[in-house]
Amino acid sequence: MDLIKEIFRGNPRAVGRAISLVENDGVGARPLMKGIFAGRKDALVLGITGTPGSGKSTLADKLIGQFRRKNKKIGVVAVDPSSPFTGGAVLGDRIRMMGHSTDPGVFIRSMATRGHLGGLAKSTGDAIAILEAAGYDIVLVETVGVGQDEVEVVKLAEFILVVLTPATGDEIQAFKAGIMEIADLFVLNKSDLPAAEKLEVELRAVLDLGLKDQPRPPVVKTSAIEGKGIEHLVREIQNVVSARSSSDRELRRRKLLSWMLRDIAREKMFDWLSRKVPKSEFERYIDKIANRKIDPYSAADEIIARLKKP
Amino acid sequence: MDLIKEIFRGNPRAVGRAISLVENDGVGARPLMKGIFAGRKDALVLGITGTPGSGKSTLADKLIGQFRRKNKKIGVVAVDPSSPFTGGAVLGDRIRMMGHSTDPGVFIRSMATRGHLGGLAKSTGDAIAILEAAGYDIVLVETVGVGQDEVEVVKLAEFILVVLTPATGDEIQAFKAGIMEIADLFVLNKSDLPAAEKLEVELRAVLDLGLKDQPRPPVVKTSAIEGKGIEHLVREIQNVVSARSSSDRELRRRKLLSWMLRDIAREKMFDWLSRKVPKSEFERYIDKIANRKIDPYSAADEIIARLKKP
Repeated sequence: MDLIKEIFRGNPRAVGRAISLVENDGVGARPLMKGIFAGRKDALVLGITGTPGSGKSTLADKLIGQFRRKNKKIGVVAVDPSSPFTGGAVLGDRIRMMGHSTDPGVFIRSMATRGHLGGLAKSTGDAIAILEAAGYDIVLVETVGVGQDEVEVVKLAEFILVVLTPATGDEIQAFKAGIMEIADLFVLNKSDLPAAEKLEVELRAVLDLGLKDQPRPPVVKTSAIEGKGIEHLVREIQNVVSARSSSDRELRRRKLLSWMLRDIAREKMFDWLSRKVPKSEFERYIDKIANRKIDPYSAADEIIARLKKP
Repeated sequence: MDLIKEIFRGNPRAVGRAISLVENDGVGARPLMKGIFAGRKDALVLGITGTPGSGKSTLADKLIGQFRRKNKKIGVVAVDPSSPFTGGAVLGDRIRMMGHSTDPGVFIRSMATRGHLGGLAKSTGDAIAILEAAGYDIVLVETVGVGQDEVEVVKLAEFILVVLTPATGDEIQAFKAGIMEIADLFVLNKSDLPAAEKLEVELRAVLDLGLKDQPRPPVVKTSAIEGKGIEHLVREIQNVVSARSSSDRELRRRKLLSWMLRDIAREKMFDWLSRKVPKSEFERYIDKIANRKIDPYSAADEIIARLKKP
């Protein structure tokens, strides 16, 4: 089948195949993504992040339900660390969203983190573009944890929800640098628990301290498992998004594209180096560094110098 | 003063200045690191990682005390995310180690994560080499969280302790891909809490599942705040390290150097690109991508192609 044409028609099997292709960085991925980027529409891309156990998947599930009632088509990219240890637990998370798996208006796909950050941002960015091309109105990007790499991936979204909960003893301290700064909205999930109030007070104090004169992002209380607060949450998301000026949206989109372009360039350059300098050459430099014949900086310079020659 | 000479003499002020230099990537950093790598001795580099609240800092503090009783000189590199939000809390953590701040046999230094991962691994690696050159017998690398970037940094250590605790509702699920695999030893801290036994059973089950026929890393129970289990922990660390064959240690060191070399090369190449391609050129490509005139992959190719021309 003509993959690009089928994607623009919204064929979910074509979407799945295309995402596999970019994930494996197969030969067909490159012309595919050219075609996708050329004709892509813009969806509302929502990022959801928060500590494991904060109920992100349940929340995502309820958000999907709410958006479906508004007749929106939804694509979900769940960013998973792939590990023999965590595989099972994470799968359990995914299953929570599976209530929607037979709904043709919902497409759910996991992306595994393999190796390093660069590749994941690239393939998640591609997956978002594919879902946009296929006509999904909303793309949810959900991360499993709150590591720096996941923060980077969630930055691909134009609107970021950070989920906190008193249930797992979430302390503000537990939030890594960068996670508080990027939130467009905070969700206090499992807000029926007694410690919720304390967490909210703490969160607001920390926001006052950190954001000083900047506007504060909204804080919305939910109890995802009971479906409480979800309508309100969707309303708040729409309020914030529609209050943005077109120049603000343009700026966000450029920042995102700039980040994606730099990331791709960085990877491509390193690929170039790896192709041009044989592994045995690298090994020889490691020997020299191990034997204190050269420092790693000078070694890197010498290796790169080989690229500068024709 | 002659910084390199003073470092080899073990002057802590020289060590502090040198680390600032590599952290800020100042002009003097390059010749400095050449000198350091040329004459460096090897310390035992221990990495400590675990979720915030697991008591890592208290544990590090007690480990320092135990090693000091054996007359070992200790350097500590605490890897901190720098954020206006978490700054205060993390500072509190550091203060727990400050009991040793007046001990000339102990050197404690925080490294902030700024920008992205690459830079942090590089500067942490440099800091370790500086401490080794200054004659510290043991270098502790402690991370604040368990994000992917911190996992990467802790890989600079030849022996990695992963700290778990029942206190913060640590679930095995909370551990990111990569963290379980890299542990040379697990510490179950706050092991006097009732849920400790359940966590240990869970951990051992998960290790059996994930490691199959490989040998299991030891699991040591501590209560750092009461100083319980620390002697046993130090003994276990020494057992594992001394059981390693010299070829195994050699292999570990090469892997580490290889990783560091690739990381430095990657950064240097991107610096080269940033110098050679003006910002306005990048902006023009962003325009073209935003207007669907080009896809990001082709744009990256065109930008890199400029480097290939003389």
